[in-house]
Amino acid sequence: MWPEPSPRGAFTLRRQRLDALLPGPKLLPAGLSRPRNFAHNPYPFRAESHFLYLVGRGLEGALLLVDAERTALYVDPPHPDDALWFGAKPGLAELSRELQIAVRPLDDFVAPDGVALLPPQDAETAFLLADRVGRDVEAGGGDDVTGRDALLADAMIELRLRHDDAAVAQLRQAAAVTCAAHGAGRDATLPGRREAAVRAAMEHAIIENGMTTAYGSIVTVHGEVLHSTEHHRELRPGDLLLADVGAETPEGFAGDVTRVWPVNGRFSSTQRALYEVVLSAQRAAIDSVRPGVRYRDVHRAAGLAMTRALVDVGLFAGDPEDLYARGAAALFFPHGVGHLLGLDVHDMEDLGDRAGYAPGRSRAVSRGDRYLRLDRDLEPGMCVTIEPGFYRIPALLADPDSLGDLKSSLSFAMLEKLADVRGIRIEDDVLVTATGAEVLTASIPKRIEDVERA
Amino acid sequence: MWPEPSPRGAFTLRRQRLDALLPGPKLLPAGLSRPRNFAHNPYPFRAESHFLYLVGRGLEGALLLVDAERTALYVDPPHPDDALWFGAKPGLAELSRELQIAVRPLDDFVAPDGVALLPPQDAETAFLLADRVGRDVEAGGGDDVTGRDALLADAMIELRLRHDDAAVAQLRQAAAVTCAAHGAGRDATLPGRREAAVRAAMEHAIIENGMTTAYGSIVTVHGEVLHSTEHHRELRPGDLLLADVGAETPEGFAGDVTRVWPVNGRFSSTQRALYEVVLSAQRAAIDSVRPGVRYRDVHRAAGLAMTRALVDVGLFAGDPEDLYARGAAALFFPHGVGHLLGLDVHDMEDLGDRAGYAPGRSRAVSRGDRYLRLDRDLEPGMCVTIEPGFYRIPALLADPDSLGDLKSSLSFAMLEKLADVRGIRIEDDVLVTATGAEVLTASIPKRIEDVERA
Repeated sequence: MWPEPSPRGAFTLRRQRLDALLPGPKLLPAGLSRPRNFAHNPYPFRAESHFLYLVGRGLEGALLLVDAERTALYVDPPHPDDALWFGAKPGLAELSRELQIAVRPLDDFVAPDGVALLPPQDAETAFLLADRVGRDVEAGGGDDVTGRDALLADAMIELRLRHDDAAVAQLRQAAAVTCAAHGAGRDATLPGRREAAVRAAMEHAIIENGMTTAYGSIVTVHGEVLHSTEHHRELRPGDLLLADVGAETPEGFAGDVTRVWPVNGRFSSTQRALYEVVLSAQRAAIDSVRPGVRYRDVHRAAGLAMTRALVDVGLFAGDPEDLYARGAAALFFPHGVGHLLGLDVHDMEDLGDRAGYAPGRSRAVSRGDRYLRLDRDLEPGMCVTIEPGFYRIPALLADPDSLGDLKSSLSFAMLEKLADVRGIRIEDDVLVTATGAEVLTASIPKRIEDVERA
Repeated sequence: MWPEPSPRGAFTLRRQRLDALLPGPKLLPAGLSRPRNFAHNPYPFRAESHFLYLVGRGLEGALLLVDAERTALYVDPPHPDDALWFGAKPGLAELSRELQIAVRPLDDFVAPDGVALLPPQDAETAFLLADRVGRDVEAGGGDDVTGRDALLADAMIELRLRHDDAAVAQLRQAAAVTCAAHGAGRDATLPGRREAAVRAAMEHAIIENGMTTAYGSIVTVHGEVLHSTEHHRELRPGDLLLADVGAETPEGFAGDVTRVWPVNGRFSSTQRALYEVVLSAQRAAIDSVRPGVRYRDVHRAAGLAMTRALVDVGLFAGDPEDLYARGAAALFFPHGVGHLLGLDVHDMEDLGDRAGYAPGRSRAVSRGDRYLRLDRDLEPGMCVTIEPGFYRIPALLADPDSLGDLKSSLSFAMLEKLADVRGIRIEDDVLVTATGAEVLTASIPKRIEDVERA
């Protein structure tokens, strides 16, 4: 498959909707590429998500002004040397026809009085913007906006929170390539190879389908390290491999999926038992997703189901509701059940918790909920991940604060017996529909009988 | 194969040599990761090259102070939450044992008076450094250093220009994986696939061998676009595919190789003729590499050999020396024949032309030489690329300034006949030895009979 761009009209409509939500001038920068080890060796350029949402193409250095009749894209005209090094680029008139928006030279940009803006991620763009608009702009300062900037943040959230048809089509494409990557990863898994070989196969599938990784791939036999960036370990028979890998479309929409599979193709009985624990938690969470449900309750559904399953397995003794209230789930599942998914893998996290938390709500301080990135009432068109996990984290199990009075309810003998499981997470991308939920990544096997090699 | 780290003693020796070259305090920052679309989704961290050269490991945010007995690495101690998200990190004492250098908490760092430093690539680190040392530090400002900073730049150049044994071992490893990538790319080339499929196969080989790409991969049927970043085109029978792809070791050393191969496995007679033109230019350049030779003369050897071959092919008529002087080579080969290779793919380009040009030399303004990144007398231990090319660049051929009085010597009929060649570049990594040169990437086929599919 090859990425299908959104119809141009989708971007016009988004700009019009933004203008209706917040009249007056609004400035959205594309941002600049970041140098890696020297200026001419940059990281692959990835435009700011708000810009991509409204333009659909990453145009390095460009500024989008949205303001009724004055709406225009300001870009640097092609430099004569560009043709030699980077190939012929469209001129401004051609770009205007292609993108169906007025296009002007960047040098012509004059900031309108009171223009609202959202800070870019890179300091260089922030510095240039500050100069243009005559006030401080802090790179990555999107969680701290005030005045009309805050109104612009709210308007972008209003637009992006519920995905329009074009966005859903992008999410489906990202999901499809993410599925291909996970298939390739499973096929590449063999004892004696390294984690890097599986990662390579997964990213191969993403690159050959014209996409990029949406975030740093996690491919590890140490699944208990939530964001492991190491890939050097050899795969041994008996290991579980955890792969948290997602594709991103050229328009910037992300897939985000985690699967766990046994290196030698077969789960041990203990691995099977704990895998089923996580799967039951994920099922309970997904079953609870529908419009009107508060996301914290989805998180709770996962934790409660997991606690029940852990009691069934014999790891805890006691009443599941009571154990859950005492933090039994958090001891093995210390992160949130998921987050918004869209143009960012944690969608709109550049705006802090403003997108993830409904007005008036804020993060809980409790161990089980403090890492929860989302607590809104679900609405049709929202896309969220559902990703419970079970992790044997030595630091948590050795910490009297974490264990608390759970010590008496936890079977250390059973924990010992389950020692061949370090970390299991099962994650899918779920679109809230008018009546319930659709799992966009359902074609990636997760039932034990489908995951095991024939 | 899997990357083999350098012996720790190599880094100790490098620091001691630096201290001998420039006594007094010197500060080398590792730098910080750059956010991609939001703060928690950064690009893969790649430490500053000068830091990597002296420490051998990318430790985000660390500062290296080199100053006799005060030499120490200042790092952030592991945060309690790190274990959960990123796994247990070594404490300062453990890190000190591993790296064989004094390690202190970052907060304890106090800038010594008159400390010399080299500016980092990212603005955030520049800002933090400026605060630490009490003077302006401009991100990416390495081409503009003065005072003791300039002495530090010169000392680093003195160290890095001729590679020590550990550096050569790293370059060999990068070359070996680069070879594997090119083999995988050739195997993955089939009519009907896209450029992206070949790129994916090449990067697969790099990732599975524990390395990263040293620069943005160029994999294109439009070889005439020197730094093409597009990979969407379908491979058609009759196309030539150009792949400029290199691997980088975890210690940061780069490979940089270009090969061209026919999509359907066989060159046409015209492609064969022009491929031989470029190969003869590359052979002449490599043959001229030895200690004492000025690199501009290597560049000239390539251009002259190419001009001779183009006369033989019938594209130019006249005396090759005369034609070369009139810019005949530059019309089809408008870039330099190569550059320094080391920790950076253009080694030490963060210091501008200071590393590439010997004191007293500067870039020529002539069409054929202005993109030449290197003009030093070669010495044993230097590593350079040799990469002549032939490109049919419409903008150059249509430009009266470029054509000049060559118009009368150029056979437009022959140019028309050679229309199935857009761009050919052949690039290898060459180590200057005591008596001549060693091609580190010789195992990647480039003779026509080896490139064609059996």
